[in-house]
Amino acid sequence: MHVSQILKSKSEQSVVTIAPGSTVAAAAELLSSKRIGAVIVSSDGRHVAGIVSERDIVRELGRRGPACLTDTVDKIMTARIVSCRRDERANDVLQKMTDGRFRHMPVMDGDEMVGLISIGDVVKARLSELAMERDALEGMVKGF
Amino acid sequence: MHVSQILKSKSEQSVVTIAPGSTVAAAAELLSSKRIGAVIVSSDGRHVAGIVSERDIVRELGRRGPACLTDTVDKIMTARIVSCRRDERANDVLQKMTDGRFRHMPVMDGDEMVGLISIGDVVKARLSELAMERDALEGMVKGF
Repeated sequence: MHVSQILKSKSEQSVVTIAPGSTVAAAAELLSSKRIGAVIVSSDGRHVAGIVSERDIVRELGRRGPACLTDTVDKIMTARIVSCRRDERANDVLQKMTDGRFRHMPVMDGDEMVGLISIGDVVKARLSELAMERDALEGMVKGF
Repeated sequence: MHVSQILKSKSEQSVVTIAPGSTVAAAAELLSSKRIGAVIVSSDGRHVAGIVSERDIVRELGRRGPACLTDTVDKIMTARIVSCRRDERANDVLQKMTDGRFRHMPVMDGDEMVGLISIGDVVKARLSELAMERDALEGMVKGF
């Protein structure tokens, strides 16, 4: 299974973004109202400056207290982002996520973002893929 | 694979807990310093009153702003917790987590907590289990 298929299976295709100058408090409100775990920081909705997750906010809150809430998101965002392309395999993407210990990955076409996948999306895809492979093989074994 | 095996494979066996009267700010500090995604609310470390996750804190922060930080954790915790037993299968636990959309589950022996597993722990177990099953079947197919 490829990233393109994972993107197609998502109920929500558009990616939620926030402008680099927005506050951490605004990011928390956005995550809360959209019921999402991370938001892409972007000034135009296509080019990725970074990502801010629930984890980033709580880490900063734990270290510095509520003072961090008036900071701008570009101060606490993860700027070095690992991304993937539409033609990559679910298994490889899951490996990257597990190795890097992150839960969200933008899907890029050149330097433009075309989607965002979460570890939940990829796990779901990979589990159904592995179950299908096993069922097919089981069918072959029984057929002999 | 069973929950007991998942527990054994975890590098950290003890469960981090916080007392019900602690503040949300203290919970954020604990999640941050321990680098974990959720903490069990318990007055004695064995009986579970609830669970507070990064998500719960950010949701509350988004809705009510920094005022929530001085609340006690028992006001924002999830009190209706789905738990599992050591003899349950990884697959069934993963289904419960996916259906209920939560990432952490206490492992209970009667009414006492004996561990905490995350969706990451269960996914890792389930993926390796499915890959092993497929490899075994593939071996059988090639053997014919």
